[in-house]
Amino acid sequence: MESINLAEKLAQIGEIWSPRTVATVNDYDVRLAKVHGEFVRHRHEDSDEFFLVVDGELTLRMDAGDVVLRPGEVYVVPAGTYHQPVAETETSILMFEPRTVVNTGDAGGELTAQRQLL
Amino acid sequence: MESINLAEKLAQIGEIWSPRTVATVNDYDVRLAKVHGEFVRHRHEDSDEFFLVVDGELTLRMDAGDVVLRPGEVYVVPAGTYHQPVAETETSILMFEPRTVVNTGDAGGELTAQRQLL
Repeated sequence: MESINLAEKLAQIGEIWSPRTVATVNDYDVRLAKVHGEFVRHRHEDSDEFFLVVDGELTLRMDAGDVVLRPGEVYVVPAGTYHQPVAETETSILMFEPRTVVNTGDAGGELTAQRQLL
Repeated sequence: MESINLAEKLAQIGEIWSPRTVATVNDYDVRLAKVHGEFVRHRHEDSDEFFLVVDGELTLRMDAGDVVLRPGEVYVVPAGTYHQPVAETETSILMFEPRTVVNTGDAGGELTAQRQLL
């Protein structure tokens, strides 16, 4: 019966590019992450991916152009679309996506994170 | 390739208790609503429902007690759980739920809204 305070949850995250699941909606995750620098370019073949910037600024580099998100701004990357998240300063984001979605999508590699509850 | 600014979208909503779908994530809707006063008590038998308060304050009255959400706070009402949303002042919320979810759930009635894109 407790509300979830996004700022309090974010304060518990020390690691960048490592999403934490703070709530679930059916088989979807609500994930928070701190990001900084360039993430790996990747795509999720079977799922859209929702981004909301809570604090900072996130650029989603895509083949068709960049989308820049500031606090209170949202974008949904369509399934199958390559995107490279980039943040020049430390940025906090909220994501909605099926719980089976892996952060690095088809790219894999060392930034791949296990699903972690917070 | 345009970001969605939640404040700009909310400024376009004049009606209360009438959610507008501002983005979709697979078969889920991202909905914004302005709310004020008491909504009908209802439940969604087959789906959880995610609430994020953007501005104002939302109380979710449930049999087990109230949850009060302020800006940046989140709660997921579990499927099958009766809840009555109440806002003493005009409040802006973001919801995330399957696109088939109807706002008044099992209660129906005059506050039932059609799915509307914005």
